[in-house]
Amino acid sequence: MNITEFVANSLGRWRSQRSAHHLAFSHFEAVQSEIDIIALPEDDPAVIDLCKSYNIDPQTAVSPFRMSWEGQSDWDDNEIKGSCILVPIPDPTDPQRGKLLRDQGYAETIAAAGDYYLTEDGTFVLTTAYDRAAAEEKIWFVNPNVRCRVSLIKTSAGSGVVTASFSSEIRQGVQS
Amino acid sequence: MNITEFVANSLGRWRSQRSAHHLAFSHFEAVQSEIDIIALPEDDPAVIDLCKSYNIDPQTAVSPFRMSWEGQSDWDDNEIKGSCILVPIPDPTDPQRGKLLRDQGYAETIAAAGDYYLTEDGTFVLTTAYDRAAAEEKIWFVNPNVRCRVSLIKTSAGSGVVTASFSSEIRQGVQS
Repeated sequence: MNITEFVANSLGRWRSQRSAHHLAFSHFEAVQSEIDIIALPEDDPAVIDLCKSYNIDPQTAVSPFRMSWEGQSDWDDNEIKGSCILVPIPDPTDPQRGKLLRDQGYAETIAAAGDYYLTEDGTFVLTTAYDRAAAEEKIWFVNPNVRCRVSLIKTSAGSGVVTASFSSEIRQGVQS
Repeated sequence: MNITEFVANSLGRWRSQRSAHHLAFSHFEAVQSEIDIIALPEDDPAVIDLCKSYNIDPQTAVSPFRMSWEGQSDWDDNEIKGSCILVPIPDPTDPQRGKLLRDQGYAETIAAAGDYYLTEDGTFVLTTAYDRAAAEEKIWFVNPNVRCRVSLIKTSAGSGVVTASFSSEIRQGVQS
């Protein structure tokens, strides 16, 4: 599996159940949301701007996409809603690796560039370093209509894990 | 990482937060438990009996262990308690793969033999076929004191996922 296939498999509308484990407090948080993933043209102005903000040649971008989500947490009952643009930049020497640019992250509301790789068994692994934290995310398909996603937020200094969250995502409009 | 290292890294007492997603109902279940993993001698009578029940030479067993758990679910408030013996049998031609025997499973209360492999990035992947269901489990270490575990229960006939659950496990007695 390469990044083009991975993104193509991800396009569509997903119903997501997410559980966040706040490890220090043994607290469980449950989030239900709908996620839309749509392909963007490689010459979309927002894609080109994002590449330029990282001094990356927009010609090297592959399969850019927009992800939007809308949901509800049982923690604070606030609506969770957002959208970001994601732009994979494959490593020219190793097609299984690359950078993933995004105009805003989940964990922080600022732009971020993470490093991804695809494992031999088709898991997408993304590591993103922020100022005071690091995020590690694994996403894999159980079948074409079910994705799993594990996200870890760590303290940037060390190996401490602050939050571990798990999403099971079911494609909408089809039988899972 | 080979199976001996993986089991050695797993020994100890763990505090586990588990979230189960029952996908058809969008239901969240939260389970808190303590898990103890202890090494067993290779000549433990229970290990030898388990091998024999599968017509497997007990000499081929590597790093057998016992796992015990005790916890509480928010679903039915019943105490969850159990224990099982697990015996890895590495494939003689490929040390990254093998069978995992256990005297009773999580999903069923009967003995089961699953097939495991270890990925290049140190994830233990176990697939177990039961009569009417199949279980797929991935376990990996985030650091020596934090493990993640994703378990999927599928219908045996097809690719339908019935339950997806995620455990974050923190080693007790140390700073995570």
